[in-house]
Amino acid sequence: MIIARILGTVVSTQKDERLEGKKLLIVKPINLDGSDQSGYLVSVDTVGAGFHEKVIVVGGSSARLAEGNKDCPVDSAIIGVIDSFDFVK
Amino acid sequence: MIIARILGTVVSTQKDERLEGKKLLIVKPINLDGSDQSGYLVSVDTVGAGFHEKVIVVGGSSARLAEGNKDCPVDSAIIGVIDSFDFVK
Amino acid sequence: MIIARILGTVVSTQKDERLEGKKLLIVKPINLDGSDQSGYLVSVDTVGAGFHEKVIVVGGSSARLAEGNKDCPVDSAIIGVIDSFDFVK
Amino acid sequence: MIIARILGTVVSTQKDERLEGKKLLIVKPINLDGSDQSGYLVSVDTVGAGFHEKVIVVGGSSARLAEGNKDCPVDSAIIGVIDSFDFVK
Amino acid sequence: MIIARILGTVVSTQKDERLEGKKLLIVKPINLDGSDQSGYLVSVDTVGAGFHEKVIVVGGSSARLAEGNKDCPVDSAIIGVIDSFDFVK
Repeated sequence: MIIARILGTVVSTQKDERLEGKKLLIVKPINLDGSDQSGYLVSVDTVGAGFHEKVIVVGGSSARLAEGNKDCPVDSAIIGVIDSFDFVK
Repeated sequence: MIIARILGTVVSTQKDERLEGKKLLIVKPINLDGSDQSGYLVSVDTVGAGFHEKVIVVGGSSARLAEGNKDCPVDSAIIGVIDSFDFVK
Repeated sequence: MIIARILGTVVSTQKDERLEGKKLLIVKPINLDGSDQSGYLVSVDTVGAGFHEKVIVVGGSSARLAEGNKDCPVDSAIIGVIDSFDFVK
Repeated sequence: MIIARILGTVVSTQKDERLEGKKLLIVKPINLDGSDQSGYLVSVDTVGAGFHEKVIVVGGSSARLAEGNKDCPVDSAIIGVIDSFDFVK
Repeated sequence: MIIARILGTVVSTQKDERLEGKKLLIVKPINLDGSDQSGYLVSVDTVGAGFHEKVIVVGGSSARLAEGNKDCPVDSAIIGVIDSFDFVK
């Protein structure tokens, strides 16, 4: 998994029906020092995360194991809001 | 998932029979400021997207969960046309 | 999926028995202008592609959905010969 | 799989219920000479690894095959503590 | 799949029980001209490959389809020893 922060939202009307009601968020992967990485992902929020919160993002087929994503055509899901992370180099 | 825009089409006659009738589009991943990323993907359109529209693209095994792709040998699918996306840096 | 061209072949005698009879080709991903990308892949041909033809290559678990690859330990398959591709920047 | 060393921990209260009780560690991929690679991963420890130990990390759907991870939304797992590794260039 | 050469071994005592008896090798991806690529992988040998032999390496979920790897938490497997490979640029 990676650590990311929530930047924004994607609005789509014409879409796969299994995406109905899903919250599609734009997330930005961050480094351990809190700085942004390049790039972004569109990820399904499954835990009710808020803007600019730091979150845990899972990718690939495991995104379909997140709550509510069974059999959905999604490859990225937010599975946790991060309280804190600690590390020693 | 990623955000991409539709650039073109791929025509193939000699192909896996499960690709029959599928619309294979060339899509270009874009950055959040709308600029192009390098690279491209060949992706199956499952939502009737139009040229130069911005779309949501799913990759990996989840592309087979998109409408009509069950058991198809595809690793990328267009699953939504984007109306808008908003973000705050 | 990606677009690649066929460069060569790999010969292996001592191998997983489910690779018996499979044609293992070396393919080189190309850019939309026809130029080579760096890198290469070893991919199972499932459509009878010829040397230097441009082909569609699928990766990951979906390579096992290509004709004849069921339950095979392969992560890349050629699933179509490209007649043409068109795009507008 | 890759070789990584354990740097730290991630604490998350608001999360997918299948992550309850899982130890989420921050791991840093290393090169064969022992130096750090860039980047990091959040990985589920399934073998009781200790801080700064060198470990084997598996990614993708196979992370769900690690002990205790069945049907969990995780894409990275620590599956072994490394005693030693040897190589000749 | 990719072409790699075998560099060394990884020894791990404290590990997932489904790794018991598996030979974990360090492999280095190579270019078509035989030169080394950067990086390395830890891969399960399933074909009895020898040191410095050139091998075919499969990644992702398909590594679990290699002989003996069913339901194992592995994402890379050696599935063939390469006799030769030929290509024309």
